[in-house]
Amino acid sequence: MRRPRLALVPGEPAGVGPELAVAALRRESDADLVVFAEAATLARAARVLGTALTFHDSRADRAQLGDDGVRLVEVPNVAEAAFGSPDPRNARSVVLALRMAAEACMAGEYDGMVTGPVHKATINAGGIAYTGTTELLAAHAGCEVVMMLANPLMRVALATTHLPLRAVADALDGERLERTLRILHAALRGDFGIDDPLVAVLGLNPHAGEQGHLGREEIEVVAPVLERLRAEGMRLDGPLPADTAFLPRRLAATDAVLAMYHDQGLPVLKYSGFEQAVNLTLGLPYPRVAVDHGTALDLAGSGRADPSSMLAAVAACARIAGVRRTREQQR
Amino acid sequence: MRRPRLALVPGEPAGVGPELAVAALRRESDADLVVFAEAATLARAARVLGTALTFHDSRADRAQLGDDGVRLVEVPNVAEAAFGSPDPRNARSVVLALRMAAEACMAGEYDGMVTGPVHKATINAGGIAYTGTTELLAAHAGCEVVMMLANPLMRVALATTHLPLRAVADALDGERLERTLRILHAALRGDFGIDDPLVAVLGLNPHAGEQGHLGREEIEVVAPVLERLRAEGMRLDGPLPADTAFLPRRLAATDAVLAMYHDQGLPVLKYSGFEQAVNLTLGLPYPRVAVDHGTALDLAGSGRADPSSMLAAVAACARIAGVRRTREQQR
Repeated sequence: MRRPRLALVPGEPAGVGPELAVAALRRESDADLVVFAEAATLARAARVLGTALTFHDSRADRAQLGDDGVRLVEVPNVAEAAFGSPDPRNARSVVLALRMAAEACMAGEYDGMVTGPVHKATINAGGIAYTGTTELLAAHAGCEVVMMLANPLMRVALATTHLPLRAVADALDGERLERTLRILHAALRGDFGIDDPLVAVLGLNPHAGEQGHLGREEIEVVAPVLERLRAEGMRLDGPLPADTAFLPRRLAATDAVLAMYHDQGLPVLKYSGFEQAVNLTLGLPYPRVAVDHGTALDLAGSGRADPSSMLAAVAACARIAGVRRTREQQR
Repeated sequence: MRRPRLALVPGEPAGVGPELAVAALRRESDADLVVFAEAATLARAARVLGTALTFHDSRADRAQLGDDGVRLVEVPNVAEAAFGSPDPRNARSVVLALRMAAEACMAGEYDGMVTGPVHKATINAGGIAYTGTTELLAAHAGCEVVMMLANPLMRVALATTHLPLRAVADALDGERLERTLRILHAALRGDFGIDDPLVAVLGLNPHAGEQGHLGREEIEVVAPVLERLRAEGMRLDGPLPADTAFLPRRLAATDAVLAMYHDQGLPVLKYSGFEQAVNLTLGLPYPRVAVDHGTALDLAGSGRADPSSMLAAVAACARIAGVRRTREQQR
């Protein structure tokens, strides 16, 4: 089977992204990686890691590359990126690299995209309204997406993402929840190859509302959606109390948990395996996997940043690309 | 040192509480236990476990008890309790046993109280307005309390407890939060013997509000409280993003986490060790530790209920009683 071709976008040049990208490029993986970044930034990150890179065009084959070869689509920066000090003048380049990779993925030139961390405040300071890479890619592709975090022990998708806690209850909407579950279910089948997945859906309130005593959203919003989708044959548990839904023996029988909001689902995921955790965007036309950490500006340039999440992201993206290919061939 | 004397209240007679109490009574522990329940209910639970009990008064010494002896303060039920079917006619007895034990603890006759699970709906159906045992004991003692869940890996206290999610943000109040932190800090010192505890305080919003972009409660409510208490010398981390506050390397340096609400803190605690978890009420004049699970009506009478949490509750209560005694003697 052909190796998947993945676009690798390191993200903020002053953060740990370039170092992590170099670590991924130097590691044998199941994918052919093409980096969208500036050659000088990558070369500097390579020096930090005591290595050197030679740059080739995006179509170079493995034999050409040799040990230190890297396929590059160059996206120049405006300012030299000093480790630890993001420069708003580079905001345009950071976003451009993401857009170019997205465009190429949409055009079918790549089988998926892997992204490093960006620095939200710096991009906004650079004059580009930016809420997150997930949102940028969703808008670019013109589709609704679902954010899912995964590590080797669990997959946790979110019904709402980055909202103030006081806005969560009103943001929970039956139609949106139904679309979220459809995207999640389709991804578990199409991206993870699970034929008849079981999804554990959490309630919004503690104890899943305790029959209405601690909130009525389970009764009025969540349960009716689950009823409709079960009638179509989806296997859905819930609405479940969040505090017991993650008990290891329950998780073992579940393919994914849908949490209603950020801090209901992510503390337990990160506790159970932060280093190996990745952030997936479900619902895009192509697989996209990101690292599950920030720019770690204090570590940038030290060579001490742990590349585990980046390596896990490359592996996860390659795996999904493989599942998608197999399913397309079976059609 | 004198062994601590603990009041053990099994809770709902139709649930697993009586079986778990019998399991605790038959197990050698570091405490002298006195049960507040009906003899017939305990005898029936003992039969389920293939054992028998003889009943003695609450002042019987260990030599008198022998292998099958139990110290009992009898609290008769009205109806015979059928396993798995709580009877609202027994609600008054369930609550009476708790009140009698609380009264005796307040009078100094016991060094602490251990409680099994009660069935909230049945007590309310019995005509007694009841929101929880923690609330009942707080009202009885006339003091403000803090709920803390603990297992061998972490301690998680809650700033708000059983509220609908949409009510949480408005319920977060600076003065109340300050009192909560004082109670928690005093308990870590006085009950757990930690001289200069470090408490990790979570933010209310995802990413702890991200400098106000995702909510302002961290800036307006939480941070000012932490400032005031730090000025008094308390070691407080935060407000911290909940999703990374539980990373094992961070927890290792922390004596307790204060979560702002139920589902922010308890999923990770229960994931990391449900069987060993106990529920502590901090701030009462006496130590009180409860099991961290419900009545498990489906298991009642089967003899298969796991007594780990009950045994852990007895051990935790005995340990706290010992720390309190040592500190009193040092005064």
